[in-house]
Amino acid sequence: MVATQEYKVIGTRPIRHDGLDKVTGRAIYGADVKLPDMLYGFVLRSPHAHARIRSIDTSAAEAMPGVVAVMTANDMPEAADELVDLGEGAINFSHASDHIMAMSKAKFKGHPVAAVAATSTNVAREAVAAIKVDWEVLKSAVTVDEALAPDAPVILDGWVGDDLGEKSTKPNVGSHFRHEFGDIEKGFADSTTIIEHRYDLAMVHQGYIEPHNGTAIWDQEDRVRLWTSTQGAFTVRTQLAGILQLDESRIKVTPTEIGGGFGGKIPIYVEPLAAILSKKSGGKPVRILMDRPEVFEATGPTPGGWVSVRLGVKDRKIIAGDADIRFDAGGFPGSPVGAAAMCVFSCYDIENTRIDGWDIIVNKPKTAAYRAPGSTHVAYAIECIIDEICEELDLDPIQFRLDNASKEGTRRGDGPIFPRIGNIETLEAARDSAHWNAPLDKNPGNGNVRGRGIANGYWFNVGLKSSVNLSVNTDGTVMLIEGSTDIGGTRASIAMQAAEVLGIRAEDIIPTVVDTDSVGYTDVTGGSRTTYATGFAAYKAAQNLIDELTARAATIWDIPEDEVVFEDGKFSSKSDPELSMTFKEIAGKLNETGGPVSSTGAVDLENAGGGFAVHICDLEIDPETGKTDVIRYTAVQDVGKAIHPSYVEGQMQGGAVQGIGWALNEEYFMSDDGQMVNSSYLDYRMPTSLDLPEIETVIVEVPNPIHPFGVRGVGEPPIVPPVAAIANAINDALGIRLREAPMNPGRILEALKEKNG
Amino acid sequence: MVATQEYKVIGTRPIRHDGLDKVTGRAIYGADVKLPDMLYGFVLRSPHAHARIRSIDTSAAEAMPGVVAVMTANDMPEAADELVDLGEGAINFSHASDHIMAMSKAKFKGHPVAAVAATSTNVAREAVAAIKVDWEVLKSAVTVDEALAPDAPVILDGWVGDDLGEKSTKPNVGSHFRHEFGDIEKGFADSTTIIEHRYDLAMVHQGYIEPHNGTAIWDQEDRVRLWTSTQGAFTVRTQLAGILQLDESRIKVTPTEIGGGFGGKIPIYVEPLAAILSKKSGGKPVRILMDRPEVFEATGPTPGGWVSVRLGVKDRKIIAGDADIRFDAGGFPGSPVGAAAMCVFSCYDIENTRIDGWDIIVNKPKTAAYRAPGSTHVAYAIECIIDEICEELDLDPIQFRLDNASKEGTRRGDGPIFPRIGNIETLEAARDSAHWNAPLDKNPGNGNVRGRGIANGYWFNVGLKSSVNLSVNTDGTVMLIEGSTDIGGTRASIAMQAAEVLGIRAEDIIPTVVDTDSVGYTDVTGGSRTTYATGFAAYKAAQNLIDELTARAATIWDIPEDEVVFEDGKFSSKSDPELSMTFKEIAGKLNETGGPVSSTGAVDLENAGGGFAVHICDLEIDPETGKTDVIRYTAVQDVGKAIHPSYVEGQMQGGAVQGIGWALNEEYFMSDDGQMVNSSYLDYRMPTSLDLPEIETVIVEVPNPIHPFGVRGVGEPPIVPPVAAIANAINDALGIRLREAPMNPGRILEALKEKNG
Repeated sequence: MVATQEYKVIGTRPIRHDGLDKVTGRAIYGADVKLPDMLYGFVLRSPHAHARIRSIDTSAAEAMPGVVAVMTANDMPEAADELVDLGEGAINFSHASDHIMAMSKAKFKGHPVAAVAATSTNVAREAVAAIKVDWEVLKSAVTVDEALAPDAPVILDGWVGDDLGEKSTKPNVGSHFRHEFGDIEKGFADSTTIIEHRYDLAMVHQGYIEPHNGTAIWDQEDRVRLWTSTQGAFTVRTQLAGILQLDESRIKVTPTEIGGGFGGKIPIYVEPLAAILSKKSGGKPVRILMDRPEVFEATGPTPGGWVSVRLGVKDRKIIAGDADIRFDAGGFPGSPVGAAAMCVFSCYDIENTRIDGWDIIVNKPKTAAYRAPGSTHVAYAIECIIDEICEELDLDPIQFRLDNASKEGTRRGDGPIFPRIGNIETLEAARDSAHWNAPLDKNPGNGNVRGRGIANGYWFNVGLKSSVNLSVNTDGTVMLIEGSTDIGGTRASIAMQAAEVLGIRAEDIIPTVVDTDSVGYTDVTGGSRTTYATGFAAYKAAQNLIDELTARAATIWDIPEDEVVFEDGKFSSKSDPELSMTFKEIAGKLNETGGPVSSTGAVDLENAGGGFAVHICDLEIDPETGKTDVIRYTAVQDVGKAIHPSYVEGQMQGGAVQGIGWALNEEYFMSDDGQMVNSSYLDYRMPTSLDLPEIETVIVEVPNPIHPFGVRGVGEPPIVPPVAAIANAINDALGIRLREAPMNPGRILEALKEKNG
Repeated sequence: MVATQEYKVIGTRPIRHDGLDKVTGRAIYGADVKLPDMLYGFVLRSPHAHARIRSIDTSAAEAMPGVVAVMTANDMPEAADELVDLGEGAINFSHASDHIMAMSKAKFKGHPVAAVAATSTNVAREAVAAIKVDWEVLKSAVTVDEALAPDAPVILDGWVGDDLGEKSTKPNVGSHFRHEFGDIEKGFADSTTIIEHRYDLAMVHQGYIEPHNGTAIWDQEDRVRLWTSTQGAFTVRTQLAGILQLDESRIKVTPTEIGGGFGGKIPIYVEPLAAILSKKSGGKPVRILMDRPEVFEATGPTPGGWVSVRLGVKDRKIIAGDADIRFDAGGFPGSPVGAAAMCVFSCYDIENTRIDGWDIIVNKPKTAAYRAPGSTHVAYAIECIIDEICEELDLDPIQFRLDNASKEGTRRGDGPIFPRIGNIETLEAARDSAHWNAPLDKNPGNGNVRGRGIANGYWFNVGLKSSVNLSVNTDGTVMLIEGSTDIGGTRASIAMQAAEVLGIRAEDIIPTVVDTDSVGYTDVTGGSRTTYATGFAAYKAAQNLIDELTARAATIWDIPEDEVVFEDGKFSSKSDPELSMTFKEIAGKLNETGGPVSSTGAVDLENAGGGFAVHICDLEIDPETGKTDVIRYTAVQDVGKAIHPSYVEGQMQGGAVQGIGWALNEEYFMSDDGQMVNSSYLDYRMPTSLDLPEIETVIVEVPNPIHPFGVRGVGEPPIVPPVAAIANAINDALGIRLREAPMNPGRILEALKEKNG
């Protein structure tokens, strides 16, 4: 299970370069940004889920002492109504602008309609309260089914979605697409067992600790400087340029440290407002920090909706699969239903498949990426149905998955052929794990019952663009400049790859994440791409550095360049064994041999190599109350090659925990008129360390053949299986199939009542 | 006089990239650095010019509320007692450490002996006042002659200077060297006219507006972060590493904007103290800002001392030159006497020369570089003596200089053979200038008298190491990363060189000066090297970028790389005239053709190509009071190629003005016991714009053959001629030769009294 290549740095566990600053509180987060003469912004948000703005009267706010600027959507530049590629995802700047500040209609509760910059936050809040909006409240639609109903209100005026290549005749369709391979009708006709169910999920939030924020200066030369907490400074720059209608190079984005993102800190929210308020304030810096209700109500969660899957089996082989995936996109089109379709059948080799995807506009906050977006939803459906098949046919759930597992050469549900993947190795590792082989006492004697569930999950990962600069110090250390926001220790995992090439210690690389003016274009830290793609850029930059140093060695020794080899961290002469220098030694000679040496490396990677995660979950449930405790949990995952195993394990554990919260407790609890009624961490119940056992991890390493060290993205697969694994464990414990998440005590008790008549 | 090569960007006058921030007060200078939990440092300084420390009692200071840390020299790490190359200059870390905080003896008034970090500057100042030092006051020596007297006190314990290769037997000799060529005795024997005089100069300060400052964090991992106003962040890093005994890579230096340096912001002063106080405060940031008296009394001015020159002439040719140059180095060895020796005879072709240089330790602040260090001193002597020769032999002062001018192939006074230089062209431009040809009414009728003086001056310029990174934005703009502190518009002058190569506008380059972690090694902004050497690095980086983009063009057009040419800002195919793309067009295609493109360029330049400046000065003097007004002033200079003519003119004007202040008013006025008695800008009289006419400029362009655009350093030559030009003008007006600077009203009246009996 472990890659055979021997490394000196890769696979070790050095202390992260940014650790001290983070544990001592010295690291600068968005709320720490303080600039001279800074103003404080606050946003007026719609109290209605769906309402037309008849008029806005800002005069009272403008007259308040301490108020420097007030803006409405009239201050937003007109942005282009076309889809622009954002690397990870795409953006329609006209929608984005309307999303950031509603032009004519609020499309969700919390939709911004005005904003104020003042000398203090309190003044700004008071001024916002003094703005009068004349609202025409409209009927709202907050679920997929409500929004698709014939009498549904039209949410996005003028929008006509694409429905299988035609203009949609239904209201609120963002889009409807289909992937179809083989002969789905014949597949089901040939099947001896067919199971079909619909699985419903509530909208849930990424739940990062740090709220969104932005501090901006729009100066008199129309240059914008922005400090913000983001997964990708360059993507912020692109969005800001499109929304503010400025050239990208007039914008400098400085990424602060990030207090969590999980996909949700790719889009921007308050940043353009801070910039426009700065412009209206004569160029003073304006900082806007969201509070927690604003984050819940107005920043992108992952969609609710439903997934209906029908599987046909013959001779223990799944031969037909049909999926209908309907996600609520929020007030504008753009849910991750496309990614869900890429994942739904990806763990299996199924000859005949059809996947329908529906992106549905509803009166809820516009969704954003959340860790393997869409894949958890579809895994909930398919992995539970697989469990039902095994139950019905009395098959071992791992063996059945192995018998049907996708592998190199399998066609993925949406069409592409799999390269070398580690699905089978991951399932085998789960099968052979201590946890799977440990007995479970299903009735521990305290009145509770126990059950064990398993589920598989897939994420495709992305590659995209990254740039890295290196420069050598004469003490043999190397400065590494990158544009990737550090999430989960990526400063370390990128530095380690450069160190491996250069034959020096990880600690001898000093990595810095810089602003958009100071390094080449780099896509977001998202799609599990950073250790993979920015690491690849670091590898290339390091190789280029070795080339430069090889030339220096040739100069120093006065031999031809092709006589110099670099191996095991040493430059040496092919012919003269006396001539040998370590990296550190040659670094010490740079000043006398032509001066400083720097290098760059950049990648644009089309593919990434997908990852698979198999999770095993033991639950203990109190049938009286429905209270559910996770008592043992194991995450098994193919990571390609674990650069820094501690951080890989951290990703596996973190993803599992977020999935467990999603399965058991988390949800946007909506009132009938489209109000989220649990928009605080008191009411929106995320698991804490007190709620969970240690998550056990099993790292599987099937090297990714298209990466020099075999890296696969590791951040996203672990959030995919938990919801299904827990549903399967609940069934194992109680014999009930819960097909709606969260599977909280109320739902368990209801299902038990129904089962027991 | 103008280079014939045609450029599109070079030679134009775009608005500087950093202009808005500077005029609006947004640029961050050292005093603007504010960090959370920051402490404020203040330094206890010796009240005596020379005194032994018997003991220091810091207990009262330590007990004061608000005091967090107190340090003395006992807290300074032991540093190596050996000379280390600093690029521009060299450093003995043991001396540097003793200079930064006196170990056993104060060697000048203002020498630091203790420092405090406290919660406010006022508390720190009070605590410093509470520190008790038991002093043994010693006899001091503040001039070269006092320090060389047989009964002089020994200032630097244990120091034995080199005297022409032997150990010095005199006290306080830093070093004594000699350059000798030809047969000096025969030269004088053959001469028909011999003139010899000694010229004395007072110590003067660079007079930058912004005092020295440093804000440091020394964290628990022994990493040091420093923000400071410096001419070179990497040189600060080297000094700090040597003094604090840390590896360079553990230190990150962020250069703030600089409020003037002129050579004086190459050494460090309070920076190591801030770092050590931070360490003693448990890692809290500590900021120390000097006040003006501290800057005058404890940071490096340019030396006082004297220059004695003897010239022998035969048949209108100077055939012998003998110079004795003695500079006061301050409390530690290291005056610019070596540079003075390189300059003293450099304007002339003299067959027989001898130059003696003496570096003398005195009880005054340790000198530092000041714009063409040493050259103004020697020009004062030689250019006045040249004037006397012309007077005595009734020769035209420009024609005599032309007849004796150094040119390509001439041996410089200290040995090297001149490459292509523009001395003759500069003299000719002065001869042909409007000013030189304008009549001067020597008796304007108001009781005042007028005179005109001329002088030539030379500076050799330096090359050294620079690094630049470039990255391309898809909108066709380019980010430029450099390590050179921007003085006098170098962001613009460097960006313009990259723009010229890339065929884009200067405004399309976005230059950023970054910290030492974020770009390759770069030497100081000093030695007039930045536009020359960092510009050369930008040129190389731009060439490398064109290579990368040529490969992209080949990919896009599917033709071999060597089929692609880049000319006039366009990529095109050699064979297919249809295939053509501008830089901007190809930039827009990067995302589809392999992703981001970055490049690096680095140089280590041994030579630089010297520069010559000829100044013409008209004075009006009131013989009753000695009051002297500069009524017309013209600076003529060979700049190689003026990248941004406005900034070249600014350098020529600024250097002239500093030289005028030096000539007429500025001096360290010392009391008998070694106290500077004029340590404020009220008493230390620098010229302001009210004191001066517009300085006229004549740019001469004799391209430097070793730079791609012909650039020569321009910042330093213009401070060289003014003192001599003014002395010659005073003689022209009044018939008196002042051989001591400053030539203030008192000295003029004294000389008039002497002349008139």
